[in-house]
Order: sequence, then C-alpha cells, then structure tokens
Amino acid sequence: MKIAIAQVNNTIGTFSENLEKVHRLYMKAADLGADLVIFPELCLTGYPPQDLLERRDFVDQQEAAFRRLVQLTSEVGLVIGHISKNPAPGEKPLFSSVSLIQGGTVVHTSHKRLLPTYDVFDERRYFEPGRESLPVDFKGLRIGLTVCEDIWTDQHICPECRYNVDPARELSMKGIDLLINVSASPFHLGKLQQRRGIAAHITNEIKCPLIYVNSVGGQDCLVFDGASFAMDPSGEVFAQLPLFKEELATIELDKREGPTCQLLDQEAPLAIEALKLALRDYMKRSGFKDVVVGLSGGIDSSVTATIAKEAIGGEHVLGVIMPSRFTSKESIEDAEELAANLGIETLTIPIKEVFNAYLTTLSPFFEGRPWDVTEENIQARIRGNLLMAISNKFGHLVLSTGNKSELAVGYCTLYGDLSGGFALISDCPKTLVYEMARYLNQKKRLIPERVLKKPPSAELRPGQKDQDELPPYDLLDKVLRAYVEDGYTKDEIVAMGVEREVVDQVVARLIKSEYKRRQAPIGPRITKKALCCGRRWPVCHGFRG
Amino acid sequence: MKIAIAQVNNTIGTFSENLEKVHRLYMKAADLGADLVIFPELCLTGYPPQDLLERRDFVDQQEAAFRRLVQLTSEVGLVIGHISKNPAPGEKPLFSSVSLIQGGTVVHTSHKRLLPTYDVFDERRYFEPGRESLPVDFKGLRIGLTVCEDIWTDQHICPECRYNVDPARELSMKGIDLLINVSASPFHLGKLQQRRGIAAHITNEIKCPLIYVNSVGGQDCLVFDGASFAMDPSGEVFAQLPLFKEELATIELDKREGPTCQLLDQEAPLAIEALKLALRDYMKRSGFKDVVVGLSGGIDSSVTATIAKEAIGGEHVLGVIMPSRFTSKESIEDAEELAANLGIETLTIPIKEVFNAYLTTLSPFFEGRPWDVTEENIQARIRGNLLMAISNKFGHLVLSTGNKSELAVGYCTLYGDLSGGFALISDCPKTLVYEMARYLNQKKRLIPERVLKKPPSAELRPGQKDQDELPPYDLLDKVLRAYVEDGYTKDEIVAMGVEREVVDQVVARLIKSEYKRRQAPIGPRITKKALCCGRRWPVCHGFRG
Repeated sequence: MKIAIAQVNNTIGTFSENLEKVHRLYMKAADLGADLVIFPELCLTGYPPQDLLERRDFVDQQEAAFRRLVQLTSEVGLVIGHISKNPAPGEKPLFSSVSLIQGGTVVHTSHKRLLPTYDVFDERRYFEPGRESLPVDFKGLRIGLTVCEDIWTDQHICPECRYNVDPARELSMKGIDLLINVSASPFHLGKLQQRRGIAAHITNEIKCPLIYVNSVGGQDCLVFDGASFAMDPSGEVFAQLPLFKEELATIELDKREGPTCQLLDQEAPLAIEALKLALRDYMKRSGFKDVVVGLSGGIDSSVTATIAKEAIGGEHVLGVIMPSRFTSKESIEDAEELAANLGIETLTIPIKEVFNAYLTTLSPFFEGRPWDVTEENIQARIRGNLLMAISNKFGHLVLSTGNKSELAVGYCTLYGDLSGGFALISDCPKTLVYEMARYLNQKKRLIPERVLKKPPSAELRPGQKDQDELPPYDLLDKVLRAYVEDGYTKDEIVAMGVEREVVDQVVARLIKSEYKRRQAPIGPRITKKALCCGRRWPVCHGFRG
Repeated sequence: MKIAIAQVNNTIGTFSENLEKVHRLYMKAADLGADLVIFPELCLTGYPPQDLLERRDFVDQQEAAFRRLVQLTSEVGLVIGHISKNPAPGEKPLFSSVSLIQGGTVVHTSHKRLLPTYDVFDERRYFEPGRESLPVDFKGLRIGLTVCEDIWTDQHICPECRYNVDPARELSMKGIDLLINVSASPFHLGKLQQRRGIAAHITNEIKCPLIYVNSVGGQDCLVFDGASFAMDPSGEVFAQLPLFKEELATIELDKREGPTCQLLDQEAPLAIEALKLALRDYMKRSGFKDVVVGLSGGIDSSVTATIAKEAIGGEHVLGVIMPSRFTSKESIEDAEELAANLGIETLTIPIKEVFNAYLTTLSPFFEGRPWDVTEENIQARIRGNLLMAISNKFGHLVLSTGNKSELAVGYCTLYGDLSGGFALISDCPKTLVYEMARYLNQKKRLIPERVLKKPPSAELRPGQKDQDELPPYDLLDKVLRAYVEDGYTKDEIVAMGVEREVVDQVVARLIKSEYKRRQAPIGPRITKKALCCGRRWPVCHGFRG
C-alpha cells in the first residue's frame, strides 16, 4: 500500500485556504498513486486555535470546511485531524478528532483520548476526551488512528504524561496492522529524540508499524517542526520527512520504503532553523515584509540580525545603529562590519540629543539625585522608541534582541530593549546565542570575531559589564536551566556545586522580574520550558523557594 | 452550633504568614465560642498558585504548613481548603482538597471533584478530580464538604459549567444536615447574583443549609470579593459577610442567626471597590507605597487618580501633567483642578523639548514624509517614558490609565499610554468609566464637571477626537460586550440592530490589536470576560468572523 504523508503548514482560522491546500495535496497524492493520504492534527483549524474554539462561528466554519472536504474525496483514503462537536452531555462541547474519509463518506472517526494540559498545552480547556479506540479496516489493512498525545504514554520519556489509559495498546489488543498518529507537536531542543523514543516505545510494545504525521510552521510562540516519519516495529525509521518545511511524500508500506532525510542534531543549527521558520511565519501571518533591528555591536543583536537575514534575505532587514556617549568606537565598528557582512542597509541615529532633552526636562525634578538605573533606562527606551518610530513610519517589524538569560533575571529594560513585535532569541540562553554565532560564522564570517570575544556590555554607563551585575553566563544558564527547565529546588542546585548566594540571587531576580516578562513581546520557544509561553507564574506572590 | 466563617486574604506562597493568620483567627473564633471555624479554598497556598504547583518545594512547604496546622487544633473543628498529593497513578499529582481537622487529627478529607478549566481557571492543569463525596459527622451534625466549583452545577446560571457529576446532590442522597463550600471565587460584575443563584439552586434541591466561605483579596488580575454567606434551604440568606474585606464572623446555625450586611448592587460602586482592593493588594504584594499617574485632564486618568486616592490616600498619589503643543488650556486646567480636589501633589513636565529632539533626530530619515501615527505615538511614548523615569527615580508604581474599550480596539500606544505596572481601569468599558466618575462625584465633586462633558481626545494632533476614529462609545461598548463577553457572532450583533460596517470595523480592530494586549500591563478583572486574563486568543490567525 502506498501512503502519502502531507506535512502541512496551515494558518489558524483560514478555513478556505486550509481546505484548498488539503484538497490540492490530496489530489496530488492521488496522482502519485497513493491509496491513503494523511494530514496532521486539527488541520483545518490550524493549531492551537486557543479560545477561538469557544466561538460558535469558528466551530461552524470548520464543520462546513470539513463537510466540503468529505464531499471532495474519491476512493483514495484521507486521514485528517479536525474538531467535532460532542453531542452528549459532558464537560466540554468539542472533541479533537481524527477521521478516515473516503468516497464522500466519513468511514471512521476516533476522538483524542489523552488531552495534554501542561506546559504550552490547554486541551482540557476545550476538549472532552474520547472514550474508546477502535480499529478501522481500509483496503485490507486494519488501522488504528490516534491523535498526538494518544501515544505519549511513556512517563520515563515524558514525565508530564501521566495517563492511566493507553490508546495504542488498546488498539493493538483489538488487532491492528498499522498505527497512525496525526500530530501538531511543537518543537524544542531535545524533542526529536523524545518523539523518537516515544515512537520506539510504542512500536516495540504493539509490534506494528507507526506512521507519524506532524504539522509544520511557526504559530506565535510555538514552532512545529514537521519531521514526520514512519517506523517499523523494530524501531527503525524507514521514511523521514524534513524538518521545518511543508512536504508531501509517499511511502510504500509493505516494502518499508520511503523518503530519507538527514535530520540536524546539533543544538545551534536546530535552533537557528526553528527561529527562521518562526520569523517567516510570524511575518507572513501578521503582514510584515521587512524587519528592523537595533544593532549595538553586541552578540545578541548580531545573532538576531544574522538569523533574520538568513530567514528573509538581507534586503528585508534594516539595521539601526543608535550610539550614545557610552557607545564605544569598537561597538559601532562591529555593528557596521556586521551589516556589511550581511549586506543589510543601516541607519545611524545618535540618541544624544533626545537623551539630553530628557535630562534637561527632568532636571528640575531630579536635582541633587545621583545617576542611577533611571538614566540607563531612558537610553534604552529612547532606542526602543526610535525603532518603533521607524516601524510606524515605514512598516517594519521591530525584532527585539534580548536573550533568555537576560529575560529570566530581568536584565533588560521594559519599553526599552524589550520593545518589539517579535523577540527572536528570547528563548535562547546566552550560551546558546554564542553557539549560534559560531555556527552562523562557519561557512563565512558574518559576525565579527571581536563580537564573540569581547565581554558583553549594555553600554549604558561608563565601563559597564554584564559580568559585574550577573553571574558568569555559563553559570547563570546552568542555574536557570536547573530551576526553570528541570524544576530543581534551590537546595538541589546548591548540591550540584553552585554557591548558595548565586542560586539565591538568580532565583530572586527571576521571581522579581515576572512583571517585565508579562509585558515582553512573544518569541519562538525552542527550549523545554520557555518564559513567554507554557510557564504561568503569578506576578505577585511570596514564594521565594 | 456556633460556626465561624473566616474570610481571609492570604498571599500566595507565604506559608508561615498564612499559617500564622489561620491559627490566629482559629484561636480567636474559639475564644468566641465557635464549635467549627471555616476557611476558604487553597487557603495556605493562596489562590491561584498557578505553576508554582508544579514545584516540589512549593508543595512540600504547603504540606509542612498543613501538618503544623493540624497539630495546632483543639476540639474546635477547623475546615480548610488545601492541596494534597495524589498517591495513586492519575493524570495529575495533586488534589485540591478540603479537610475537617480537630484535636490534632485530620478527621475527614474530600477532594474537589469539579475542576473549572475555562476563562481564568486552569484547574485541570494541576489537579486530579476527586472520585467520591462522603459526609462527615461532627458534633452530631452530618456535614457535606465541597470545594468551590463542586456546587456550580446549574448550567442555566453558568453556561461553562458542564458537568455530569453533582457532588452536593450525592452528599445529600447520603444524608447531610449542612453543606459547606470553601471557595476562592473571583469577582466580576454580576457574579454576586450568579453565586446567589447557584446557592439557591443547590439549597433548594438538597433541602439543607449551605455555608459558603469565599476568600478575599486582589491577586494579579483577579479580585476575590469575599461576601461569604449562609443560606437556609428556602434560599434565604441568614448570614452575610462584607464585600472586599477580611472578616471573621460567627453564626448560630440552629437559630439561623448571623451577621448582616447590605451588599452594593450598582455596577459603578462595585467596580470601584473591587479596583481599590486590587490596587492595595497589588501594591502590598509588589512592595510599592506610592503611585504615579499621568493626568491628561481626560476622564480615564481622572477616574484612575480618584480611585487611587480613595484606595491609598492622596498623599501616596503623584499626578504628572505632561502638556504638549496639542494639549488644550482646558485639559491642563482640568488636570490641575482634579489634583486640587483630590489633594494630590503634581509635577508638570512639558514634553515639547524631548518631542522636538525626536523630530530633529529623525528628520534626516523621515524627510518628505507626512506626519502620521508615528509622531502621535512618539508623544505618547515620551509620556510613558517620563512616568517610568519618575518610577525608576522615586520608586512609584506607574498606573496606566487606559480603559477596556480602547484596549479592545487598540486605540492606545504600546510603550506609550500602555506603560505601567498596573492598568487600573483596563477592564472597565468607557461607558462604565463615566458611570464611575459620576459615582465618585456624588458625595463631593472630585472630577471637574467639564471632564465628564467634553468629547474624549488623545490630543496627539490638532482637533483630534476619539469619535472621529471610533464608533460612539455606547455603541462600541455594546458591540464589544456582545462579541467579547457574550460570544455573539457578527451576524447576531447585526441582527441586534448594529450596522454591519461598525461590527466589522470593531471586530477587525479587536483581532488586529491582540499583539498590543499581549504587552499590556495586567489590571484587575471586573467583567465576565476580561482582555488581560481568561481570554486566550492567538496573536496570528486568519479568523475574521
């Protein structure tokens, strides 16, 4: 049997476009001789539709698109994830479903049974869990249909996945020849291995092949990486679709033949590719053609601009250099060299005059008080405002350039460097930003060597260095990863060999700066636990643990 | 039997303080001769702890506090809501529980069975639902213990409350003399009536009295209003605790006697009291003593400053008047008169010099391009930055002054008037802001009459009026309420008599400005559906319905 995998990038709520694309790929797959074409989870709505699911008009439009799709099917089977109404009384009025459609009829529908409600997932908010899993017969094959989380039953691999139900095993006990999983599974570093582990666990357990179809695309903070695959019961992958791009591919199930693709496995290039997709899709979906980035000559803005250039082309990236009295000559040179290397246009807009006007304007009120963070923040805010002025006047999207380490400890200025529509590297720890810079420089030096070597500085007062105010970044990132991503307690982190004072300082800063993050622009999630989504901490609380 | 109701305002995560307060009130109630003292839901942790519940250290600290509390009990019963670990395999590792404690022992524990997972609630994210409800005998009384949502089973009153289980009825079938409900039920306009309706439905159904104990306090966007009560089976309230304040009161269950209290029922004073509590608690929990408000002479800033003055006293409110070339003489007069009426200090900081510096600095880049929203936003951002500078230098909390109507349609400037730590009236539709102004003026004219009468204007260009860019506010608020709060479709709103063009424009602006709201400061929720919490829409999507 020839099975097509359609790894699509659909936009939430564009029902006619989504339907048109699904139909087009279905027809194309039929032309390629496919017996069955598989699309991802919630394919007609896009994922995650969030509270749009609470709107009757949204649900009705999806239903109409789904009915139309059913009418359009021939004898070639079509498996697709979609929402359906729960006709019975139950906590929630909708199911997340997967159907096999053929010849103008819905042959079989299963409802997602395991509904992830943790981290970035809120599925219990919208969906009622399905109650049973039944195989469906299709052209001599008994197929088990599952949706995403339905196969995430190995708690060793996913600790949050605590379920008492195992849909794949239930299907297997009823006898299946093929397990299909339609997913909208977001990317983070380590996710590919985790997903492979989950799949190997399942196929090994139920002794039948698995076809895993994932969606692709950037949606707000989430990046869906695609990387759909087919795995035989031994755990061997016999078909692999690419990362981070739409693709239609066919596999020969009986011969265990399908497309091959070498997946990236290093963190830096994986993160870069994820960010490129996230940026392109954010721009496409919010109607931007160009970005503007403030270039400080530092590592963060250099990496941001370089990734932007790789994602959308240098002609769509505008660099703005905004020197102050504290900006070193080297910083300006580095920013200019970077821009030249990237082939991007720059504007140089000194902030001196505006800064002086602020100081003069405020001097009657600040008289006799020493220079402090106020004056530093004013400079950062002038830069933020200038970038927003460029954005307002010319229609560019402002990319903010802060990294995760800064954002975590609040080493950033609200309405200053936190200004922007999209915070491209906001989930990249500083140590990863350096790794990305080195990777970006591999083929050709884009980021000046000095940018990688000089000690990071906000240059908001004479002689300022990040390391005078923060622990060294490798240590900071270690503590943040342990506390934020892995959930270790402060005591446990001390037991790992970090000084208690450092741990206390980092956690205190993390907690204290929650209010800044609430007002930070969204940015793509690439780690297991991002700060902008999937982490819900109160702003006000007294926990200091 | 004498029963004490302890309507407390606990801070999330301050376990020793929370424990100390519970113990103190318990002892005080014992002194008053109480047989039983009842505290609200999740009383030791505070509510809602959000993802702090995922931290082992947080859970362990609560457990320790709970164990200590148990040790401290005498023969006087203590009913309290708390978290407990779920020892069995299940989707979630915690329960939201209610226990009866007495004489150093946990006499009985029930787990919350109905877990709200909609709007501002995410309880399925953390908790496993309880599986059964059993009465407990206490000094000759059979008591049924429930937690908050457990009694929200009337879908006519709460459409989101779709449950197949009815814990109160189950308890009643097992025979109870008293139903107790411990809650942390957030306020919104209409909630008091809704809660009374739910209670009357239950007591009528099970024919036994209900004691309803709610927490109180402002927590980020949520305001808990207290207003605990006791109701007899006929639906009559025989004890009523006050709105928006901590209180310990005793009732004589057999005699149906308890404290009485006239509750506010008009929207404006209710909203004002909610905002006052929200502001006081936000400041207490984030360590601020004073606020700073930009006074434009308009209705929003006038109402914000007046409520702040009423909440924390005029000596803690600083008004900043920031005139530009477009600010009318009347606006300045009105701002000054307001400040005089409120007895608050003001600073006058003209923005002209900074604005000119921006224009000069940007002129080489903007040459030949007409004045547009760019220049308007620069002015708003200068004001935002000046307020933040005051905040940075003197430690005041910046109150932003935008209302819900503006925020909904994006009629506000990111990093400009959206700057601030707390957006006091951000969930108040403009029409309610006027109502609040009239109410605030009832006892004594605080807000100048002209502020209520003149047409609203952002004064960012000559002759600008809100009504040239937006539908009249009564119409705008009608459309917003229908679309956002009540979930009507565009067609349905047209059928209510609103022009299609207006509906289309408002919904398009609402959808387009989601990115601004993502970066807006938090503010207290007072309507059924706020924009800052409990409403999760994607930033990027193609739904235009």
